[in-house]
Amino acid sequence: MSATTQTQHSMTTPGDRTIQVERIFNATRERVWKAYTDPKLLAQWWGRGNQVDIERYEFEKGGHYRFVEHSDHGSHGFEGRYREITPMERISMTFEWDGMPGYPCVSTAEFHDLGDGRTKVVSTLQFYTPEERDGMLHSGMEGGMAQSYAALDALLARMS
Amino acid sequence: MSATTQTQHSMTTPGDRTIQVERIFNATRERVWKAYTDPKLLAQWWGRGNQVDIERYEFEKGGHYRFVEHSDHGSHGFEGRYREITPMERISMTFEWDGMPGYPCVSTAEFHDLGDGRTKVVSTLQFYTPEERDGMLHSGMEGGMAQSYAALDALLARMS
Repeated sequence: MSATTQTQHSMTTPGDRTIQVERIFNATRERVWKAYTDPKLLAQWWGRGNQVDIERYEFEKGGHYRFVEHSDHGSHGFEGRYREITPMERISMTFEWDGMPGYPCVSTAEFHDLGDGRTKVVSTLQFYTPEERDGMLHSGMEGGMAQSYAALDALLARMS
Repeated sequence: MSATTQTQHSMTTPGDRTIQVERIFNATRERVWKAYTDPKLLAQWWGRGNQVDIERYEFEKGGHYRFVEHSDHGSHGFEGRYREITPMERISMTFEWDGMPGYPCVSTAEFHDLGDGRTKVVSTLQFYTPEERDGMLHSGMEGGMAQSYAALDALLARMS
């Protein structure tokens, strides 16, 4: 895959308990929102090519979700609960990996219409402690996330 | 009920995102542990006299729980997941009220054998933000907790 400026993300740590990632997608906000919120579409990019079973998906404030990703390294469950859903603008939810039960973070995605057919997604992860944040940073999350975003690029292109 | 020094708790805020409560019970650590971990006993004091339905109770690391308290003011669900269970010593878990979904705190209870037949329980609540901590402080939690502890005193006396 050739790298372009569009397909690079930027990752920063605005505070000692947060991670922030910005990524521009070459698709309208409506299309990006659909890919983030339609469970059949979400399952096509979230797992970076791995099968994702969406065991629970109650997409409303207070609803629960649970995704299980199946890879060569085994099955990994992720779950949480929706704190806020503002259509086309923001999704905020807890996010907890089965491998670290009882250590949720808060994941917030904001969708910005760039006005030229592109959309910027700003994702923020908030942790209870700097140690939990650093554990996530060193988990390989950035590489995995880049793979997910690349799969989302491909899906968005197919949706056009 | 007559107040004695034994039945008073102390509540402090060691940091801007934490609440700590200390309470001494006139019972052995084994008995206090049992009252905290046997769901039939837990349901007898946790709701301060209100009916508590224990809908889910997987008391192991990574397990989930869900309690629903039924009062004159309606039904209130609480749920979370166990982060750490060290028998007789410590229970750490997330704790989330249905009324504020997506805003879990981490609740940790430590059980200290005072060597004279009494047990001190140190409970710590950790929040993501000072605002969430303050919201809990102003929710009436201290009065409710005092009622729960009084119900636990009565249960512990019946268990002897």
